[in-house]
Amino acid sequence: MPHFERIQYKPISVRELLVEMKNLSELMIDLAYSAALFNDKELAEDVLALESHVDTLAYLLDMEIMVAARGDPKDAEALIGVSTVAAATDKISDAAADIAAIVTRDIGVHPIVGAIFEKVEERLMKVTVKEGSVITGKHIGELGLAAGMSVDIIAIRRNKNWIINPDETERVFRGDILITRGAPIGIKEFKDVAEGKPGKLKE
Amino acid sequence: MPHFERIQYKPISVRELLVEMKNLSELMIDLAYSAALFNDKELAEDVLALESHVDTLAYLLDMEIMVAARGDPKDAEALIGVSTVAAATDKISDAAADIAAIVTRDIGVHPIVGAIFEKVEERLMKVTVKEGSVITGKHIGELGLAAGMSVDIIAIRRNKNWIINPDETERVFRGDILITRGAPIGIKEFKDVAEGKPGKLKE
Repeated sequence: MPHFERIQYKPISVRELLVEMKNLSELMIDLAYSAALFNDKELAEDVLALESHVDTLAYLLDMEIMVAARGDPKDAEALIGVSTVAAATDKISDAAADIAAIVTRDIGVHPIVGAIFEKVEERLMKVTVKEGSVITGKHIGELGLAAGMSVDIIAIRRNKNWIINPDETERVFRGDILITRGAPIGIKEFKDVAEGKPGKLKE
Repeated sequence: MPHFERIQYKPISVRELLVEMKNLSELMIDLAYSAALFNDKELAEDVLALESHVDTLAYLLDMEIMVAARGDPKDAEALIGVSTVAAATDKISDAAADIAAIVTRDIGVHPIVGAIFEKVEERLMKVTVKEGSVITGKHIGELGLAAGMSVDIIAIRRNKNWIINPDETERVFRGDILITRGAPIGIKEFKDVAEGKPGKLKE
């Protein structure tokens, strides 16, 4: 059974909450598809946990908005757009959880679901960092992925745990399993480099 | 009132339908946020039209899946994952339409909604192609955007119409309004070039 966080009002910035909900919900789509493509139950369970977390954020944001409206209809009118965007991000995170549930509930990922990624401009790829790769020990920020190869690392699996949406200061180690997202050529090049083959990445 | 397409069974590839639903639904999120950010009613209306189109695709896909299952429980079991992914893309397109409706219904975009993009890695930018820009007359493919600057053109406004998700053979002309998505530095550089300032883009 999932663990539910207790919801209690605390003053938090509406803006911070909305930023987190937007980012998480869109990341969750990629993570859910990754879980389906690579038939990865742990990653799928992380998506479900994130969905529950987004629900918590949604409750907090709704309370925050109520307080911010200060009983004033004009303020309520101004804030309804924010609440609509928050609800939309919540819907997106629900959709991601639906996809993840295919994996956790052993529904089985039909080959068509994998095939839809073959024609997509942005692809997901799983790669294990091998001995001798120039990227081992480097910060994600140092890799200059976004600028150099248009590749994002959206999750790292290390010691049976997933690090979701790692930040720039996170280092990459041998044995790490990386979920990357990017243009087909870029992620192919990155895979070569991560596997220790000679590649384009600057040392 | 929106125009609804008449739904009638016709044999179409489930895979093609799912590819289109997935791509459209994710593009729609960016378009909906663009419509909100730039307070653009026409673009918001296009998002609503796309949502109605995704609904049509969802009906067609559901029928296609029923036929493909051939009354066989085993086939139905194998296909339920496909139908779940399709339903998830439909949910995502609904969420995008909810955001677009803020604009079409004059609810007003609270500054917080704009502010959430300031911290996001991928941003949306609107730019008008000016006289003297090196990109005028070029195909999107020639610009090598994805490779060179990590910038995607997700929509072009020309002669009061939006061209949604233009393909690589589409040319860019003076006066075109482009909605671009990418890393902050990339889209800033691209804006300079599109406005005819000297920039990094290869001629």
